[in-house]
Amino acid sequence: MNNGIVLIGAGNLATNLGYAFMQNGLPLRAVYSRTKTSASLLGNRLNVPATDRLEDLPEDADLYVYAVKDDALESLATRMHAPQALHVHTAGSISLQVFGDKPRCGVLYPLQTFSRDRHVAFHNIPVFVEGNTPEVTQCLRAVAEEISTRVYEADSVQRARLHLAAVFACNFANRMYAIADDLIRGAGLPFDVLLPLIDETAAKVHELAPAEAQTGPAVRYDRKVMDRHKAMLSDEDIRFLYEMVSENIHRAAQNKQ
Amino acid sequence: MNNGIVLIGAGNLATNLGYAFMQNGLPLRAVYSRTKTSASLLGNRLNVPATDRLEDLPEDADLYVYAVKDDALESLATRMHAPQALHVHTAGSISLQVFGDKPRCGVLYPLQTFSRDRHVAFHNIPVFVEGNTPEVTQCLRAVAEEISTRVYEADSVQRARLHLAAVFACNFANRMYAIADDLIRGAGLPFDVLLPLIDETAAKVHELAPAEAQTGPAVRYDRKVMDRHKAMLSDEDIRFLYEMVSENIHRAAQNKQ
Repeated sequence: MNNGIVLIGAGNLATNLGYAFMQNGLPLRAVYSRTKTSASLLGNRLNVPATDRLEDLPEDADLYVYAVKDDALESLATRMHAPQALHVHTAGSISLQVFGDKPRCGVLYPLQTFSRDRHVAFHNIPVFVEGNTPEVTQCLRAVAEEISTRVYEADSVQRARLHLAAVFACNFANRMYAIADDLIRGAGLPFDVLLPLIDETAAKVHELAPAEAQTGPAVRYDRKVMDRHKAMLSDEDIRFLYEMVSENIHRAAQNKQ
Repeated sequence: MNNGIVLIGAGNLATNLGYAFMQNGLPLRAVYSRTKTSASLLGNRLNVPATDRLEDLPEDADLYVYAVKDDALESLATRMHAPQALHVHTAGSISLQVFGDKPRCGVLYPLQTFSRDRHVAFHNIPVFVEGNTPEVTQCLRAVAEEISTRVYEADSVQRARLHLAAVFACNFANRMYAIADDLIRGAGLPFDVLLPLIDETAAKVHELAPAEAQTGPAVRYDRKVMDRHKAMLSDEDIRFLYEMVSENIHRAAQNKQ
C-alpha cells in the first residue's frame, strides 16, 4: 500500500470507511465525489485531497475503493483506468463482472447499515471479501483485517444471499418499527416507550435462535387477539401485512414442532 | 400493602415480576401456578409459599396480580374471591371487564418481551396502569412506581393499541430476523454475522424516527436488486412477503416526500 488508497464516494459507507482507513493507519490519498460540496466535506474531515473530477485522481494508487450507489458503479469503474491497481467495490448485490476486464478486482462488503452521522465501530463489523484471483483475495483479506476483526471470504452468490438476509434483518425490521411508530403515536403515546422492547428483541437473538425467541399472538395462533388487532388497523395494506406475517409465524412454528 | 401481594402465574412475566417485587421490597406472600412443579420452582426462587390450588391462597392479601395466559385469566379471576382486595392483570389485549363485578380492579401492563431465563432490568420498562376508579389508578401507580421509573396511565383502548404496536416492533421484527437466519444459513454462513447489523438497526431508532432511518433497495425502489432478491427466494410465501413489505416501504417513502 505504498502508493495509497483512493476512495470513490462520499456517502454514508464511504465516510465510515474513510474513517476506518485513517484510524488504522492505512494511507488514504484522495477522495472523489460526484458533487464538489460532498467531496470537500469528506476531504476536510479526513484531511486528504478531494475532487469531483475523476480525471484529477491519482492514477498510480494501489487500491481504488468504490463506495457509491449501485447505479453509478459501472460507469465510474469503466472511466477509472489505473490498470495495474486493485479495484474493489462494496456492494452486496453486484458481482465482480462490473469491473469488466480489469486484471485485479474484488469486493469488500461490510455487513452493516451506515448513517453519515453515526460513527460505527468498524472493527466489530463482519467484512466479506472476494477477489478475482487467489492473490487478490489474499491482498484484500489483509486490507480488511486492518479495519475489522471479523473477515470472511464470500463469493458473489453468497454475498447476494447475505444482502438479501440483511434486507430482512435490517430494512424490513426497521419497517416494522416504523409501523409500530405510527400506531403508538395514533394512541397518543411517544415512540420511545417502545425502545426497551426493541432493544430486548434484538438482544434476545444473541442468545436464542430467532425461531426459538418468537413470541406473540401469532405463534400461539390466538385468533381472538389477532382479529381484534386487525379490526384496529384502518390501513388496508397494513392489515393485510399483519395477516400475512402472522400466518407466516404460525406456519413456521408448526413446521418446527 | 401490609397484607402483601399474591402472584398468580409462574411463566416468564410472572417470574420477572416476582423478582421485581422482591428486589424492591414489596411483600410477596404466595405464588400460584396451574402445575405443582412450576409453582414450586418459582416459590423456591422467590422464597415464598407456592401452590397449584387456588383455594389454598390467602384470601386477605392486598393485591392479586394475574400474570397468566389470556385464555386462563377469566376463569382464574372468577374463582379467586378476596372481594376487598385489588385485582390486576398484566395483559395487553384484555379489558377490565374480565374482572366482572370485583369492586377494585385494574391493569399493570409492562411493555416488554420476557423470557424465563433472561433477567430484565424492570426499572427501565415502561409500565402502563389502569384502574376501575381514580383511587385504584393512584394505588396501582404507586405500586408500579416501586418497580419502574417509567409509569404511564393508559386506558383499555390505548393499551390495545400499545399491544398491537408491540406485535410489530417485537414479534414481527423477530420474524424478520428468523427469515434472515434461514437465508444466511442457506448461504453456509452463521446467523451471528447478522448481529452487528441487528444491533445497529435497533440502536439507530434511538436517534432517528424509524421512517427517517429506512434504508435499502425498497426505499430507493431499485427494481433490479429487488427482482434479483425475489429470484433467490424459493419459498413462495417469503417471496410474496418480500414484495409486500418492499411495496409498503416504497409507498411510505413516497408519502413522506
